[in-house]
Order: sequence, then structure tokens, then C-alpha cells
Amino acid sequence: MTALTDITTAPSVFETVESEVRSYCRAWPVVFERATGSRLYDEHGRPFLDFFAGAGSLNYGHNNPLLKRALLDYLARDGVTHGLDMSTTAKRDFLEAFRETVLEPRALPYKVMFPGPTGTNAVEAALKLARKVTGRETVVSFTNAFHGMSLGSLAVTGNAAKRAGAGVPLNHAAQMPFDHYLGGRVPDFLWFERLLEDPGSGLDHPAAVIVETVQGEGGVNVARAEWLRKLADLCRRRDMLLIVDDVQMGCGRTGAFFSFEEAGITPDIVTLSKSISGYGLPMALCLFRPELDLWQPGEHNGTFRGNNPAFVTATAALHAYWGDGALRSRTLGRAARVERALLDLCGDDGRSAVACRGRGLVWGLEFADGERAEAVCRRAFELGLLLETSGPHGEVVKLLPPLTATDDELDEGLGILARSVRHAAERRTTGRAA
Amino acid sequence: MTALTDITTAPSVFETVESEVRSYCRAWPVVFERATGSRLYDEHGRPFLDFFAGAGSLNYGHNNPLLKRALLDYLARDGVTHGLDMSTTAKRDFLEAFRETVLEPRALPYKVMFPGPTGTNAVEAALKLARKVTGRETVVSFTNAFHGMSLGSLAVTGNAAKRAGAGVPLNHAAQMPFDHYLGGRVPDFLWFERLLEDPGSGLDHPAAVIVETVQGEGGVNVARAEWLRKLADLCRRRDMLLIVDDVQMGCGRTGAFFSFEEAGITPDIVTLSKSISGYGLPMALCLFRPELDLWQPGEHNGTFRGNNPAFVTATAALHAYWGDGALRSRTLGRAARVERALLDLCGDDGRSAVACRGRGLVWGLEFADGERAEAVCRRAFELGLLLETSGPHGEVVKLLPPLTATDDELDEGLGILARSVRHAAERRTTGRAA
Amino acid sequence: MTALTDITTAPSVFETVESEVRSYCRAWPVVFERATGSRLYDEHGRPFLDFFAGAGSLNYGHNNPLLKRALLDYLARDGVTHGLDMSTTAKRDFLEAFRETVLEPRALPYKVMFPGPTGTNAVEAALKLARKVTGRETVVSFTNAFHGMSLGSLAVTGNAAKRAGAGVPLNHAAQMPFDHYLGGRVPDFLWFERLLEDPGSGLDHPAAVIVETVQGEGGVNVARAEWLRKLADLCRRRDMLLIVDDVQMGCGRTGAFFSFEEAGITPDIVTLSKSISGYGLPMALCLFRPELDLWQPGEHNGTFRGNNPAFVTATAALHAYWGDGALRSRTLGRAARVERALLDLCGDDGRSAVACRGRGLVWGLEFADGERAEAVCRRAFELGLLLETSGPHGEVVKLLPPLTATDDELDEGLGILARSVRHAAERRTTGRAA
Amino acid sequence: MTALTDITTAPSVFETVESEVRSYCRAWPVVFERATGSRLYDEHGRPFLDFFAGAGSLNYGHNNPLLKRALLDYLARDGVTHGLDMSTTAKRDFLEAFRETVLEPRALPYKVMFPGPTGTNAVEAALKLARKVTGRETVVSFTNAFHGMSLGSLAVTGNAAKRAGAGVPLNHAAQMPFDHYLGGRVPDFLWFERLLEDPGSGLDHPAAVIVETVQGEGGVNVARAEWLRKLADLCRRRDMLLIVDDVQMGCGRTGAFFSFEEAGITPDIVTLSKSISGYGLPMALCLFRPELDLWQPGEHNGTFRGNNPAFVTATAALHAYWGDGALRSRTLGRAARVERALLDLCGDDGRSAVACRGRGLVWGLEFADGERAEAVCRRAFELGLLLETSGPHGEVVKLLPPLTATDDELDEGLGILARSVRHAAERRTTGRAA
Repeated sequence: MTALTDITTAPSVFETVESEVRSYCRAWPVVFERATGSRLYDEHGRPFLDFFAGAGSLNYGHNNPLLKRALLDYLARDGVTHGLDMSTTAKRDFLEAFRETVLEPRALPYKVMFPGPTGTNAVEAALKLARKVTGRETVVSFTNAFHGMSLGSLAVTGNAAKRAGAGVPLNHAAQMPFDHYLGGRVPDFLWFERLLEDPGSGLDHPAAVIVETVQGEGGVNVARAEWLRKLADLCRRRDMLLIVDDVQMGCGRTGAFFSFEEAGITPDIVTLSKSISGYGLPMALCLFRPELDLWQPGEHNGTFRGNNPAFVTATAALHAYWGDGALRSRTLGRAARVERALLDLCGDDGRSAVACRGRGLVWGLEFADGERAEAVCRRAFELGLLLETSGPHGEVVKLLPPLTATDDELDEGLGILARSVRHAAERRTTGRAA
Repeated sequence: MTALTDITTAPSVFETVESEVRSYCRAWPVVFERATGSRLYDEHGRPFLDFFAGAGSLNYGHNNPLLKRALLDYLARDGVTHGLDMSTTAKRDFLEAFRETVLEPRALPYKVMFPGPTGTNAVEAALKLARKVTGRETVVSFTNAFHGMSLGSLAVTGNAAKRAGAGVPLNHAAQMPFDHYLGGRVPDFLWFERLLEDPGSGLDHPAAVIVETVQGEGGVNVARAEWLRKLADLCRRRDMLLIVDDVQMGCGRTGAFFSFEEAGITPDIVTLSKSISGYGLPMALCLFRPELDLWQPGEHNGTFRGNNPAFVTATAALHAYWGDGALRSRTLGRAARVERALLDLCGDDGRSAVACRGRGLVWGLEFADGERAEAVCRRAFELGLLLETSGPHGEVVKLLPPLTATDDELDEGLGILARSVRHAAERRTTGRAA
Repeated sequence: MTALTDITTAPSVFETVESEVRSYCRAWPVVFERATGSRLYDEHGRPFLDFFAGAGSLNYGHNNPLLKRALLDYLARDGVTHGLDMSTTAKRDFLEAFRETVLEPRALPYKVMFPGPTGTNAVEAALKLARKVTGRETVVSFTNAFHGMSLGSLAVTGNAAKRAGAGVPLNHAAQMPFDHYLGGRVPDFLWFERLLEDPGSGLDHPAAVIVETVQGEGGVNVARAEWLRKLADLCRRRDMLLIVDDVQMGCGRTGAFFSFEEAGITPDIVTLSKSISGYGLPMALCLFRPELDLWQPGEHNGTFRGNNPAFVTATAALHAYWGDGALRSRTLGRAARVERALLDLCGDDGRSAVACRGRGLVWGLEFADGERAEAVCRRAFELGLLLETSGPHGEVVKLLPPLTATDDELDEGLGILARSVRHAAERRTTGRAA
Repeated sequence: MTALTDITTAPSVFETVESEVRSYCRAWPVVFERATGSRLYDEHGRPFLDFFAGAGSLNYGHNNPLLKRALLDYLARDGVTHGLDMSTTAKRDFLEAFRETVLEPRALPYKVMFPGPTGTNAVEAALKLARKVTGRETVVSFTNAFHGMSLGSLAVTGNAAKRAGAGVPLNHAAQMPFDHYLGGRVPDFLWFERLLEDPGSGLDHPAAVIVETVQGEGGVNVARAEWLRKLADLCRRRDMLLIVDDVQMGCGRTGAFFSFEEAGITPDIVTLSKSISGYGLPMALCLFRPELDLWQPGEHNGTFRGNNPAFVTATAALHAYWGDGALRSRTLGRAARVERALLDLCGDDGRSAVACRGRGLVWGLEFADGERAEAVCRRAFELGLLLETSGPHGEVVKLLPPLTATDDELDEGLGILARSVRHAAERRTTGRAA
């Protein structure tokens, strides 16, 4: 591991100039330089297989050549880069491609809003719109939800450490149990429905419910399709808007383009970001039923909502991957393969993982505690695989391989993961700190 | 104007699919395709001189060739595009360049935080940090301030229409009069200081004060250096952190790299975005004194805080424009030229503008009402010049030409502006709606 | 019923001058003049048996002669009436009596605070103290809780109509299911405990939990002693203060002086009001463990916290009723008698009540809907018995007879109630509107 | 001073049982027993001339014999004591007397609401109503305002120590400068009007403005009639409700029944409490224009809003003092006498008071700091006069003698005050701590 240590001999500019808030670079103490497909390379040329994929922003891999071509061409011919919300040919191409490959085939009637180019901006826009349209304040979110770091999004996010950073009380939100949260001991939505039907419950009638179909940061918690359908039904019956935050799980991560398609529901509002540009470039969308489009011009704006290079790669990605069902099928087909591999790592021997869960190509391998999960990721990094933990205690190793990973890469990553689990358990047994 | 009208014969995808929230595209009903330097071109090749510059995001012009080269090279060689907060060579280069060309020459001790890549994200981070460090909630902002659209930033933004979009009450903020707000009839900070010194005033001790040195969206309101020094002094004496939001006025817009340099003050926290990447790519920074760097790792995070292509162009821009004082001198030198031209357009005849003001290359030409200012911008667009209004009533035509505009371009734009003012007044006189 | 109707021939001063907010007077359209023991008399001398008892403020009956003597003597000899928080002999007498008859026999170490003389003022003080001591904001309350109408208390109150009156969002509160709320299908505190143990739940660590042992306004919902013990245990384990709001259920209403004694728990903070003065005079107390007494002098104050005539009657009441266990025993003994009578009125025939519940001398008779319950109360009024509805839909007839009612009065009231239930059902059957 | 010291030999029940929140009893360390007219007597019979009058609750003196008779009669004949909002003869008598002696002679069209029996309850009701009627949240209050301790009232109260007790941020309020606050250097309402007329000011359109005509707790700050008229005009022009909180200054304290009469304005909402019952008994009213009476029945309620003994004394007080203009004239006539006496105590010698101000029989004598003012009150107490400080630094000795004080009592009190000022200055000079 010499490559890892020699960068730490003198304090780097990261240590002297960058804020203490930095985090991933602490777990992966190398300096990355290049990336293609499923691999990142550090400045010494050492390759790392990437099962993190930009926290879900690189579903089509790094510097995907199909998109790279379009991007380089666009930049070379001086296409508009920064467009605010001006009409541009790049934006038109994107809107047409999105309508043709995403909205029309699914008979989704959504209007498309370009908020600022980040997930939290899309969520802020969604929350504003839901409150504006209904004239109510409360938004219901779920345990272990993650929706972003700006003040509106943070109020519907569960993580206590992130919430503590707000510096002001986080209000206008109410939490409900996500699927499986109470261990199956309570009928779905029993509590929520009681609160809604009882005028003495103290729950002010919510403007909306915001939900992730699979909670990535929250620990790869997978909502059943049936649970989502019940939620959609509850929202309709009780006059609440349903917002699906598909920032991380959209763009094919679970198989279909939208993660909620499997459940057969149509949310009122959908947020997209991360992999929508396809190339890791900042971009976000907020989609909603046309009858909700009550925005005044400019009522929600932002400097970078017209990041046209991102529109170009987004358009290329839609054409490359969503003109047919191939990617979807491949992703769904791989789920079983990953699940088998992960099940092999689970057991009740105190050394193995305790459970695994996932959909499509998002999977979580849960350990007894955060320390064990972190040790696995640390070992995986040493072995050349990038993996991160998630969950309230950091107890879940999260797998987010590029959807475009080859079968070999998938096997390679799963193999390293298996070795990492074994090694971490051995280190633990021999009392050696990793 | 045939080119303008024939696009409206059938509803475009912008009209059918994009949300009603879109705004600039309504004032400029063409589809832009290409851009270089100070000019944008629509899809029919018609050029527009750009005195809007991406709302201040394109200080170095469109597709600046010095930056373009670096960007294309980086992308071509598969540099990391999406880096979260991992260490990358592109980020290291940027941090080093920023330290060498910006921080060290000004003896600024700041730590650098990469929040999400938008101005509002940088502001949210600044507000969080100020509250976290002080343990207080209230942040003081100024009349006609604009700090962003996410919930935390919106609470310190003045615009009533934007605030109304929040859907929840905006709290933990208090407004004070910006410089000149009370027409010079009240000593600077008389009211603010009285509130602070009086334990019965009802103003909870603020965590921080957030200020723009020149309020762009608010109407190109220019704070005097003396006023800023008094504010900095007040903050120090009364134990409040001073946040300068330099998102729009930083990166040389007013001459110096930071807009507060002229006043000789050192804010506790500074936000930067818009022109920091130099190429219109989403990027933002939050700078703060090292003793304030009490963040826990990951306490504020975001998917696109590591937009590495933006780091590449940002580094190139720092090297190209901030290694010496040439750009600064040139910008400062041009201020007088613009001022002279604008003063010629002011008068008390009811047809002219009523006042002008600015610093460096941000200028406002104030009209009696928003209708007149809008008519001027409309006519300027017909004559091939992009200009926008600002101010609480949209009564101020705002000039934000690229800092890299040639002298001829500057003259050309000022000439079109003069004609537009004249034409708009004539149309008004002849009772003709534009 | 002539007496009832002839008052409505000309609009009364109540109708022309008093606000529309008045409510009880609408259900009981007579003008009351006099009251003794268990009876009120209207201005025409018509008696009404009072099973409402000032919403629990008249546990010792109207104008109880034991207290009346003390009050008249005090007033006659010009005792201090209005004392703010000055020390007075009347206050000293009260504090000594409270210590001797209430605190010491129960080994309760409480400090005694005199907030403003109403229940909501005591609750506001309790909430402030809990937040101040813990440095946290969130207070957990229960479904169908009622704690008062001022802004702090209203935020922990469940009733939607009352909450809607706030005019601002009600924050810093979270609702949990009261005992029996989920029909026994969910283990006690499963949801609450999960939220507390999970750092990703989104529930900010609460300062306190506020609970009524029996929810009066909420529909006479009776918490089991075991449930209360589990709650007290949860508060201790999870470092939350336990506030018992005994405003309505304290002072012997459930048998013991404090309603929580039966469960064997010792809350951290207790609020008392309503019957504490014994004579219907405004008075309230906030009790708390001495280590919580971190108030600054005057930090919470109020003009009428020293209502000395109330102290005089309160002292007399403590001596008359709490020097021994007689009242307690009698109240407990009567519970069975009331329950038997109410059970006779329950059935599944669609005409009877659907359930009854209570403790001591607070009982609820639940009907299928609010309309039926209201019809019963209306008929009871015609027959000379004052009864009110409660519960989220007004579906529960609430019995709060004076604890000092004679056996005959109790039987009389239960008899009228039985007739009222029968008559209301008959009217319903014959299609006659009451 | 033996009488004062021997009570402290053993810890009293006040010290061992009562909360540390107690305050007045610390300044006046005796135990009061009896009171008549302008005097209180401690348990040893020592008399104290009362220039505090229950913080303005005893405008007609202690145990006023005219009211005492009515109260004893009412209680003796078992009149209803506790009436919630039932109609009673005592309430009818009060409403009729209030209409005849207060509303009709002044052509005030107000509806009368009985909120809970304390000032803060009346304020909470006023704020709720203003927000409900306008659909807005923000209420503007003034520097050094005092409106009460429950959460809604506290948010519009200026005192930092009281605000700190809230434990949660106090929102939905904005502060404006009270009359004279900026030392006459700023035109009245310049700042407020600018904020209102400017859609970019950041002040959300207020529901209402709440004001005291004379700020008692805030330091006896007297608003000029002209300032109040401008405020009323501003409220009308800018569509904000005007709430006058007349809790302390109403009921004749400034001469007229309402303190705002002198200015010739008609507020939209008025709160009354303190002296309205006339006997120091808890009672409060909220008055408002009939078109604002949009309350739902019971939307704001409270257990003790029907404190009928207070109605009885209130009615007696109205008949005794407000059937003609005698009390008003007498109070107004005495103002000059008090002012002369206080002016004699002012000077710029460093030993005297620095200023005095007041209206009717509320006066403030301002000292250089709170320590000096407190020393004066301490000495006055030793000399048998009860006086309290007010103002943000406790620097103002406040005079609130009963309106019914005789001329001799007034002279006596002013004489003791003069001696106290002299003695306190001497003690200070000789370096002796009081």
C-alpha cells in the first residue's frame, strides 16, 4: 500500500485548504485522475473498480464514449453552455427526446421544470409547488429518508447528524414509517391513515407525501410495490400530492427508467437528477401533472438551471439507452445474479453479513454494526473496489455498480466484496485493527 | 422581425412540455444555438450582443478559447468528471491555483468548502455554518437582497413574489435597510445598532449578517465602501459573523476579484459561484475563516459538489485572468466610460432614465417604472442586444457585459441601449404598444 | 319548554355584543344565575343537575359552603386579593397546606410555580421549562390531546378546528398514538421507541413528552396504568422529561389527588389548574423536580399569578378533602356504580351507545357519531341535566359530576341520562328532529 | 428594619417550596396580609403605600368598598362563580354596563370576546383573529413592547431575557421603532412605510400591528397622539389591522377609559385585562370590529373565561367610575402635579434622575442606569413605598398609584420618592451599599 501512504507525508492542499466537511476523500485516501467505464484511476495509474458510481450519478459509467462524442462536438462547435432558462437548441433536443423516449411511451403527462441543477434543488421546487398548490404546509416524509441538504429538503430528511447541521429547527414535516420499518408487526399505513381520518390526531392535513421507492442513503430499504400502491391510493383518497424523489433510483437504477414504474403508480410530482445527464454533469428535473403547473414565471429560478452541456449528454443517453428496453432488461436480469452473490455472504455466524436487499442494480449488504460494514469497505478499497456504507448506523454496504458494467466487472466486484467480507471478519477475529 | 414570429406558429416543445415557471425565454423569444465571446447566436444565425452574461456567470465571455482548450483536453483524456468530494488532480490544481492567485496575494486565510454547485447551495452552507458556530438562529439580511431560492436562502431574500413561492413562513431572518435605502435621511446603521444595544428591542442576537456589496437582482444598488466598513465594524463589535454573498459580484465583476476588496474588509464567510468556473459550468464555493471550520465530515454534502470539468475551467480562468492585475485595471477603467454613457441617458424630462449607478462592469439604469424599463429591454432585443431588468418593480435596466468584451463591443452595446431608450420613449409618446 | 324559548324573542346582549366565539351558551340557551352543590339555577329558578362541573373545575361542587366561609371571611377582612408573586399570608397558607396534604404524604419533591392562573399558562410554563432545561425544541404529545389555546399549548393539542385557529403553522411538536389508539394491534410504544433509537428516523430528540392520563376533551380516553408506566420508563431511558398535564384529571377527579398516582409514576413536571382553587376561581400551578428549577427570577411571569382569593379557597379545599383518604375512596367506589349504569346503555342495536369508559368520576359514553351524542345531550338538557360531548367527532357524552354529588344526585343524573339516550333514539326512529 | 430581617432567620416555605421564578417577593421581603385603598399591610401590620397597584391591576385601589359590597353580596347569595362561556346574569349585567358606559358613549362598535382571564390570553386571541381574518402570519410589534409570556404573545414582546425563556425561536413577528426610539432623528414611520411600499423589502405583508400607547414594562415610553394617528393611518392605507394592547394602560390609567381615546383613533382590535375587574380578579377582554368576528364557536376557548365574580366587580366599577367623566378629569388633572414633582428630581448633576415622562397616572423617572433606579426603589421600600423599575435596563422607576389615591397619598408617595432619590444618591456618594 505504498501508493496510499506516500501522499500523506506532507499535508496536501486538501488538508490545508479544503474544509473539514470533506468526507469521501477520507475513506479513499488517493488522488483520482482519470476514469472510464466502470473504473477510476488514481494519479499513479492504479485502477479502482467503481461500485459507487458517483452515488448513483454515473449509471452509464464514467466518460461513456457514446455521450463523450456528443459532448465534445457540442463544446467544439461553441454550443451555448450556460443558458439560464432561455430556449436553446440543446434544450429543445433534450425536451423532445425526453418526451419521446420517456414520457410518451409511459403515457406520463408531465410538465418538465428545470430547477437548479442538483437534487436538492429539484426537491425544494417540488415541496414549494406542493405547498403552493394545496395551500398547506406539512409534508410527510419517511423514516430514513434522504432528500437533500438545503433547508427545505433537510426538513424531510431523517439523518440526525445532517439535521443537526441546520442550526434552526426543521419544521412543516411529519415522519411516517417506511415499508418494513416496524418489522411487519403493524399493518401498512395503519398509523398514517388513523392520523388522517381523525380530526383530533394533531397531524395538520399534509400538502404532500415525499418518498423514495428505494432509500439509498437510508440503508437500501426497498419498498414493496404493493406498499407503494397503497401509498398512492392513500394519497388519492386523502387528497395529498404524492412526490416520488427519484433522484438516486431513477434513470434505470432499479431497471425501468423510473423506479416507480414497477408498482404501476403515477406520482403527482417526480424529481430527477444524478444520472439524468448521464455524464456526471449537474442537472435536475422536476416533473409534475400539468394541472399542478401553477408557477408564476420565474417564481422559482436559479443560475445553472440551463446547463446545456448536460442537456446534450442527457439527450445522447436517452437515445442510447432508452429507445428500447435492452438496458432495462439487462439490469433486471442482473438483480438475481447480485442477490445470489450477496446471499452467500449472509449468515448467522456473527462473521457474515446479516441480510441483503435490493432491486435492479442497487443492493445493500447489512452487517451487525457500522464498524463491520466500514471494515469491509476499507478492505475492498485496498483490494481495488470502491464501496460505500449507508444506513442510520452506517451498517449497510451499498452496491451501485454502473448499469453498463460488463458481466466480468460485475463478477470481479462481487468477488472482491466476498474477499473483503472474509478478510474483515478475519482481522476482527485476530484482534487486528484494520 | 420575421425570424421572431415564425417560431410561434405552432406551439413549441417549450410551450407544450416545459413548465410555466420559465421566464427569460419569454422576453427573448428565439432559440439560441451557439455563443462565442460577447455574442449569442440563435438557430437562424442571428447574433445578439450579450450584456446579460448569464446573469453574471460569464464574466469571461461565452466559450472563452483559453478555457475551452483546457476543458476539451480534460474531457478528451477522460479526466474524472464527477468526483463528489473525492480528491482529484483537477481539484488539487484548482485549490492550488485558488490559493496562489486569490487567497495568498490578498492574505486571506480562508478554508475552501465545495457545497453543491449553485449559489443557493453556497448560501445555505454559509447560513448553516454561521448558525452552527454561534448557536443562534437569526440572520440579518438587507432590503432587496437576493440570495437564492432554496428555503434557507429564500428567507434572507427580499423579493415578495419569490418569497410567496415558499409555501411556508420564512423565519429566522430580520431585514435592515441597505445603503441609501432611506434616502440618506438616517445615519448609517442607526436603527440596526439601536436594536443590538437594546436588550428590549426584540431582535434576537443575530448569528450573522449577509450582504451583497452590490445588489444585482435588487436593482444594482451599490453599497459605499464606507458603509461596508461600518457594517464590518458593527459585526465585529456586536459579535455577529459577516457573510458577503459574492455570487454575482465576485470574480472580477466590480474590478477586484472579490467585490469587498475595495472596502478593505475581510468577511468571516464568503460565497462564490456563477463566474467561478469561468465557462458557465455549475460550481460554487463557500470560504470562511479557519477557526469557523467546525463542520463534521459530510455534515453538509451534495452530489455535484465535485464537478471536475468546472474545476478545470476555473483553474484556467484563474491563471488566465488573475495572475496579474490587468483584468482588474481594465474593468475599473471601463466603469467611467459606461457611467458617462449612462448619464447621457438620464434626465428629468419624463422620457429619459431617472438615474444610473454601478461599479466596475455592473451598472443599472433606473426608469420611472418597470414598464418603461421593460420597453427598453424589448427594443434592445429587437436591435440585437440582450439586457434584463432588475429592482423591486423591474424598473432598473441592468448591464452585465462580459469583462472580456472589446471596446467596440462595449460601445456597440451602449449605442444600442441609447437607441432603445430613445425608441421606447418615442413609442410611448406615439401611444404605440411595443 | 316555554322558559327556554321566550328568551329568544328579542336579540339578547349576548347575541348583539358578545363574539360569535361563544359556544356552551348555544347548547344551553338559558341564563344561569345561581348555583349550589351539584345544581345550577337559571334566572327563572329552574334547576339543572350539573354533570359538567365547569369542565372539571368544580370537583367540590358549586359554592361549596366549606370554602365559601373561608372566602367570604378573607374578602371581608380585606385580605390581599391581587398579589402578583409577592409573599402573602394567603399564599404561605396555601404552600404549607399543599406541602402537608399533597406533596409530603406522596413523597413528591416538587417545587411549586405559580404561572398565570389558567391551565394553558401552566402548560406554557411547563413547555418552556422543559425546552430550557434540555436545550431541545421538540415536545411529543399524543393523538387527541388537549393542552390549551395559547400558541405553545395549541401546538401540542390535537383538535384540527382549534389548531386551524392559530393562523400560523404549529411547530416543535410530534404526535404519538395514545393508549388504545391503534386498536391494540400494535405493541405499546413500538413506533415511538423505534423513532428514538434510530438516528435516521427524522424525529429530533424530544425535550419532553406531555400526556394526560385520561384525555377529557379528546373523548375520555383512559390510559392504562401499565401504559403510563411504560411511558415513564421510556422517558427515563431515552432522556426525555415527562410532563403530566393534570389540569382536568388532577384534584381527585380520578380518585387520587393526582391522576398518575394509580400508575405509581412520578412525572418530572406536572400542571394543575381547574379544580385546584376548589371554587371555580382562576388558579394554576406548575410543579417540577427541584433540579429542573433553573428559572431566572421573573423569566416567566403574569399579572394574575397571585390570585389570593383562590389561594384561600384552595387551602380550605385541601384541608377539607385531602387531609384523609375519604374523598378518594368515595370517588373510587363510585366508579363501578357509574360504569354499571353506562354499560346498560351500550349495545350493538344501532340505538344504544357503542362503548363506555372512564376512571373515578370521569366517564365517557361513546355513540356511533357526533349527531347522536349531541341529541342525547340536548334531550338531557331539556330534562334538566347538563352534559357535554367530547372526542374528535363530538361522539362521546362526557360525565364529570362533582365529586361531592350525593348518591341520590348521581342516581338522578344517571337516570336522566338513560332516559335521554332512549328518547334520542326514539326521536331518531320517528324521524323527528330534536 | 428588624421586621424585615427576622423573617429570614429560617428558610420560609417560599424559599423551600416556591420556584426560583418568583421575583417581586425578592425586592419586597415581607409577607403581605391585608390591603385597603392605596395601602398594603404586612403580617406585622406595617403599612406600605402602593404606587405599583398590582402592575396596573388595581386602578381603583385595594378592596375598593364600592366593589367589595357587590362581590360579597354575589358570593353570599351563591351567584354562579365559574361560568365558562355560559350565559349568566352576572355576564349579562357586565355586557350591558360595558355597552352603556364604555362602548356607546364612545360610539365604538366592538364585539366583546371573553378569552382566558389574563392579558396574555387576550393578546393570543387578538393575534389569532388578526391572522385568521387576513390569512397572513406576520405581526409587527414595537421595540420594548411587552405583550405577555405565552408563546404567541412572547414573539411580539421585546425583552431579551423573557424571549430567551421560550426555548424555541420566536417567529412571525417583525419589530419597528416605537415613538422617540431613534431620538427624533428619523421621520416617523419612514422605515416601516418604506418596507411596506417596497415589494423587495423582505417584510412579508403583515396581518396586523400591535402597540401599547404607553409602554409600561418597556420603560414608560409614551407615544405621542400624532404618532398614534399616523400609525392608524398607515394601518388603514396599507391594509393591516391595528391592535391596541390596552391591558395595562386601559381602564383609565391615562385618564380616558381607553388610552387611545386621546389620539382620536379607533383600533380594529383592543385587548383589556388587569383593572377591568376592578378588584384584582382575573378577567380579560378582546374587543374587535364586528366585521372581524369570524370566529367559529369555541375556536378559542378557556376554562376561566367566565370568572363571574370578576364580572360582578367589573360591573360595579363601570357604574361607580365610568358613568360620568369625574375620574377621567381627576386623573388628567393630577398628571401635571406628578410631572412637576418628578421634574424636580431630574437634573444633569449625575445624582438626580435624567428624565421623566408619563400620561395620566403612569409615570416613569429615568436614571442613568438600572443600579441607581433599583437603589431608589429599595430605599423607597424601606421608607414604606412600593415602587418598581421598568425599561430595558431596569433604569426607569415606574409610578402607578391607584387612580383613587387621595391627594394626600399622592403627595406622600411623591415625597417618599424624593427622599429615596436623595438618600440613594447619598449612599452612592458615601460608597455605602444599600
